[in-house]
Amino acid sequence: MQFLSDNAAPVHPQVWRALQAADDGDTPYDTDALSREMDARFSALFGRECAALWVATGTAANCLALATMVEPHGGVICHEESHIEQDECGAPGFYLHGAKLMLAPGEGAKLSPEAIEMRLKGITRGVHQVPAQAISITQSTEYGVVYRPRELAAIGALAGAHGLGLHMDGARFANAAAFLGGEPSEAVGPADVLSFGFVKNGGMGAEAVVFFDPGKAEVARWRRKRAGHLQSKGRFLAAQILALLEDDLWLRNARAANAAAQEVAGGATDRLLCPVEANELFVRADAAERAALREAGFAFYDWNDSTIRVVTSWATDPAHAAAFGKAIARL
Amino acid sequence: MQFLSDNAAPVHPQVWRALQAADDGDTPYDTDALSREMDARFSALFGRECAALWVATGTAANCLALATMVEPHGGVICHEESHIEQDECGAPGFYLHGAKLMLAPGEGAKLSPEAIEMRLKGITRGVHQVPAQAISITQSTEYGVVYRPRELAAIGALAGAHGLGLHMDGARFANAAAFLGGEPSEAVGPADVLSFGFVKNGGMGAEAVVFFDPGKAEVARWRRKRAGHLQSKGRFLAAQILALLEDDLWLRNARAANAAAQEVAGGATDRLLCPVEANELFVRADAAERAALREAGFAFYDWNDSTIRVVTSWATDPAHAAAFGKAIARL
Amino acid sequence: MQFLSDNAAPVHPQVWRALQAADDGDTPYDTDALSREMDARFSALFGRECAALWVATGTAANCLALATMVEPHGGVICHEESHIEQDECGAPGFYLHGAKLMLAPGEGAKLSPEAIEMRLKGITRGVHQVPAQAISITQSTEYGVVYRPRELAAIGALAGAHGLGLHMDGARFANAAAFLGGEPSEAVGPADVLSFGFVKNGGMGAEAVVFFDPGKAEVARWRRKRAGHLQSKGRFLAAQILALLEDDLWLRNARAANAAAQEVAGGATDRLLCPVEANELFVRADAAERAALREAGFAFYDWNDSTIRVVTSWATDPAHAAAFGKAIARL
Amino acid sequence: MQFLSDNAAPVHPQVWRALQAADDGDTPYDTDALSREMDARFSALFGRECAALWVATGTAANCLALATMVEPHGGVICHEESHIEQDECGAPGFYLHGAKLMLAPGEGAKLSPEAIEMRLKGITRGVHQVPAQAISITQSTEYGVVYRPRELAAIGALAGAHGLGLHMDGARFANAAAFLGGEPSEAVGPADVLSFGFVKNGGMGAEAVVFFDPGKAEVARWRRKRAGHLQSKGRFLAAQILALLEDDLWLRNARAANAAAQEVAGGATDRLLCPVEANELFVRADAAERAALREAGFAFYDWNDSTIRVVTSWATDPAHAAAFGKAIARL
Repeated sequence: MQFLSDNAAPVHPQVWRALQAADDGDTPYDTDALSREMDARFSALFGRECAALWVATGTAANCLALATMVEPHGGVICHEESHIEQDECGAPGFYLHGAKLMLAPGEGAKLSPEAIEMRLKGITRGVHQVPAQAISITQSTEYGVVYRPRELAAIGALAGAHGLGLHMDGARFANAAAFLGGEPSEAVGPADVLSFGFVKNGGMGAEAVVFFDPGKAEVARWRRKRAGHLQSKGRFLAAQILALLEDDLWLRNARAANAAAQEVAGGATDRLLCPVEANELFVRADAAERAALREAGFAFYDWNDSTIRVVTSWATDPAHAAAFGKAIARL
Repeated sequence: MQFLSDNAAPVHPQVWRALQAADDGDTPYDTDALSREMDARFSALFGRECAALWVATGTAANCLALATMVEPHGGVICHEESHIEQDECGAPGFYLHGAKLMLAPGEGAKLSPEAIEMRLKGITRGVHQVPAQAISITQSTEYGVVYRPRELAAIGALAGAHGLGLHMDGARFANAAAFLGGEPSEAVGPADVLSFGFVKNGGMGAEAVVFFDPGKAEVARWRRKRAGHLQSKGRFLAAQILALLEDDLWLRNARAANAAAQEVAGGATDRLLCPVEANELFVRADAAERAALREAGFAFYDWNDSTIRVVTSWATDPAHAAAFGKAIARL
Repeated sequence: MQFLSDNAAPVHPQVWRALQAADDGDTPYDTDALSREMDARFSALFGRECAALWVATGTAANCLALATMVEPHGGVICHEESHIEQDECGAPGFYLHGAKLMLAPGEGAKLSPEAIEMRLKGITRGVHQVPAQAISITQSTEYGVVYRPRELAAIGALAGAHGLGLHMDGARFANAAAFLGGEPSEAVGPADVLSFGFVKNGGMGAEAVVFFDPGKAEVARWRRKRAGHLQSKGRFLAAQILALLEDDLWLRNARAANAAAQEVAGGATDRLLCPVEANELFVRADAAERAALREAGFAFYDWNDSTIRVVTSWATDPAHAAAFGKAIARL
Repeated sequence: MQFLSDNAAPVHPQVWRALQAADDGDTPYDTDALSREMDARFSALFGRECAALWVATGTAANCLALATMVEPHGGVICHEESHIEQDECGAPGFYLHGAKLMLAPGEGAKLSPEAIEMRLKGITRGVHQVPAQAISITQSTEYGVVYRPRELAAIGALAGAHGLGLHMDGARFANAAAFLGGEPSEAVGPADVLSFGFVKNGGMGAEAVVFFDPGKAEVARWRRKRAGHLQSKGRFLAAQILALLEDDLWLRNARAANAAAQEVAGGATDRLLCPVEANELFVRADAAERAALREAGFAFYDWNDSTIRVVTSWATDPAHAAAFGKAIARL
């Protein structure tokens, strides 16, 4: 029973169908009909004009988004446990040509306006210091908690007041949107660019970078090519994304994953590090307890010496989730 | 009848089967069984120990290969019409952190030892000039001609004498190998790293970077992650590549493409810019002739004012190729 | 008798005096009174508002200038024999984060509007190619010839029509201005940024980057610091520059250098590669002739197998120049 | 009475004499006799073979040193209050092409082996994380304290065990060496490269990068040129450095600065943030106390709301230092 990662989940059957339908010899790169449909589909989804580019990975999506906001001598305020800081092997340093990640703390890997302001207050020495040019937040966060619309509004106001871009790493944006009630524009708030994740939610290898200022997408198009991310058979990436947008499949998948997480959480209430709002749980468990759970057939990662990370996906069998919850309760 | 690009060809049925078989929830990134099989499969293919990494595009493959050979202050000798110079939007400048492409001329986009030596002789002013650190050649070339083993040996000897790395851009390596008789080690010669193309030859979105000094692959692994090219469901990239290696499908596909090109060439002998050795033809045709061919249902790109580019693929219908050859002959 | 390079010339006595006067413990970096005076002095010199930054070298000046105009995925059209292409060890690749130098030919290392347009016409394939974002010209050129005001106007018009920045490498701007009659605004024409050289013209280690759109200087200030070029005792760089601007010392020095060049040229009229307009001569001389000149006590560099380069400076003894001219005439 | 910064100190008279003696028209860049003498002089000073390069600033020195140790995908462990992290506007990100500074805490801005090991222990996730490739320490530290030889040995052992390079930022190396008794090899310990500061200690605009593995200097030579730091009249930088090495002037200057710091410290013992070991003091003083000191004619920077920074130099008048100590004692 697999709770290691939503990366291990299979490709959704409707995505498979869309992939095969796309095998039609259309024109290369992003000149095919499917790729050209993306802007309109995301514009409809968010209720305002967007420009959207596909790329294969969340790392590329985050970096291309930030590259439109941050100069090589600039900086990005982000959480000290964010994916861009911890898990991307310095990819932002590469794509942003040495720009600096400016770390701030916060419960549940969430940035607060206060933490951001504290970081900004430390920047006082002119050209001797890196100027902040953007804020990057993760929705849902590395710890599976979700920014509420008023929290997003407060961060957006701060960004506006300081002339900073606002980027949202939405590797699990779907799970956040599902938690908040299913309205994507509420879940994204005033972000300027969203890395909208599909790989963990039924896709094979496609994410979208959604620009709410369509003009900003132009620079990203050059940078995507320059980074080797303009796939020549791009129609297969667009196909995945459009399939997941169709009839809100992305949202239905996320709801299933969130529900499975709640099922597990039900048995772990007194052991949870953070509230369970999306599809990740951080559960306190000592070595003996982990061994017992693994012995019982549950696969998961150790987060640190005292905590395990449990991840559900659109494909998690609800019975497995219930069993896991019970097994934890029994410890 | 489509002769625009081998990028427009469909995904081969065996690749589709392999993709679906890979949808098994194996571990992420390149830790799955298929990804771990790649080194052994390429080692068997080339008859010597290799390390092989998958990436989604030829641009990424070329750049990651070169990044293991060239320092940011170094240079790469390449043909002035090579893909890395002309068509990758400066990707080598990005991946190599500003290293320089040092251009040399040559018939059929082929580099000769003489042209390389001429370039090297101009480098005499110590730290005021960029030092050459690698040579990059394309097999088959941008003009569809193929380096012979003795030509490769001569370039390899020159590279060795000057301490330069040797990279081969093999976006159409399969077509070159098919032309040379099907022995991959002959087609690659003494190259240190090969960008081995599969996308144009039946794949969906996977190329291999093959290191003949396996130790060199380590740096490329970090750089791949850092460039956002370590896909989390990497099993689907490995699956494509392994499917194409199985029972020499890559070679059979290339032979079919080459045969189709010969079929077209048969009708165009007195109009060819270069000998047709792989799956590309450059055919002299004026505006009226182009219009006539398009009128007759043939799709192709204009190369310049007097020449068209015709590309065949594994999926080109031999009857279409024959018809195209006849149509050209009739002009 | 030294004709190797204007780099070998001594520091002018008035510069020495200014350096010593600056040893007054003023505030660090560019907050001292002398550094703060630079904008006004260059604005007065050019008759329009400028912002000017000091740096230690022409390479840094050129690169910081270009960094305000060219994005990492962009390109700079320049002459194939320009200093930024030939002699700076790839510095533009470093400072511009991999942007491309797009080479064009031209007599006397001069770019013509036609050569620039030809280069621009080749850029047609969208994101697959690097977009040109700036033109860089050298005044006086690598071959010691000078752009006339109407030539500058034509290039400026072309830059404007294509939305390109215009940079002038003025390592020997003083010699060009002296040749053109001493009006600096005519010599700079419609350039957006000028690298104004002082080191070769009586300075010790200071050049100015002059921005004719003062707002553009802001980015250069960050980049200067980031490149380690914001010297903490910057007052000593400002002092050199201001001393050379005082009473047109820069122009008087350049006139002396140009006059010395004319003196040499007088004896070499039938051997000159280019017209002598500034302080460099390229003189045809075979191996025996070179040996004879060196035997007679003249020091100079070989430019290639058939040509020598002769450079005069503000400090060239007119008698030496006359002697050199006679020695060449006598060959 | 000036205690703002050692940057504001004048150029030492012997440095002036050396500068003027160097105005001899020697060959350009670093081919002159003085530049060529540097290796031997530093080798004699440290009692082992070194290669030494001049550059104009400490930022350039630090970055060129690190660029020989750290790949673009690598990281440098350094103190969270180090100059490379806090005060260089992201210069290491520029010179190291996006490599990461990995911050560690420590009293007095000193790194301990424990803090370094803690940082290393967090690096466990393969290519998903930046690998550490070097350690950078500052001697004396940002807080004016000095690493003892056994502390350096312990850090060197750790670096060796993990295959990391060891860099020493010695902007105030002279003050550290003076404190430790004047033996430079003890003060540098097992560092692989030293940024040896001269600007704050009597120079005008020259620092040395000293490589204890001379082979490593080669890469730095290319990078220096590429960064625009190879000044054409390099003889003037070498002259400053050699003048300060002559008869241990560097050490005598540092002893004078340190003695002045002790003089001030004598009056501030109960207010010191750190022990005073070099030429910087961090003194607790509230707003009223600061005002009183400034009223009395003492100039210094506020470090934060409760602390002032006091810096002495080789040129600090001992009477001023004594007066400042007394003024603080009187508060």
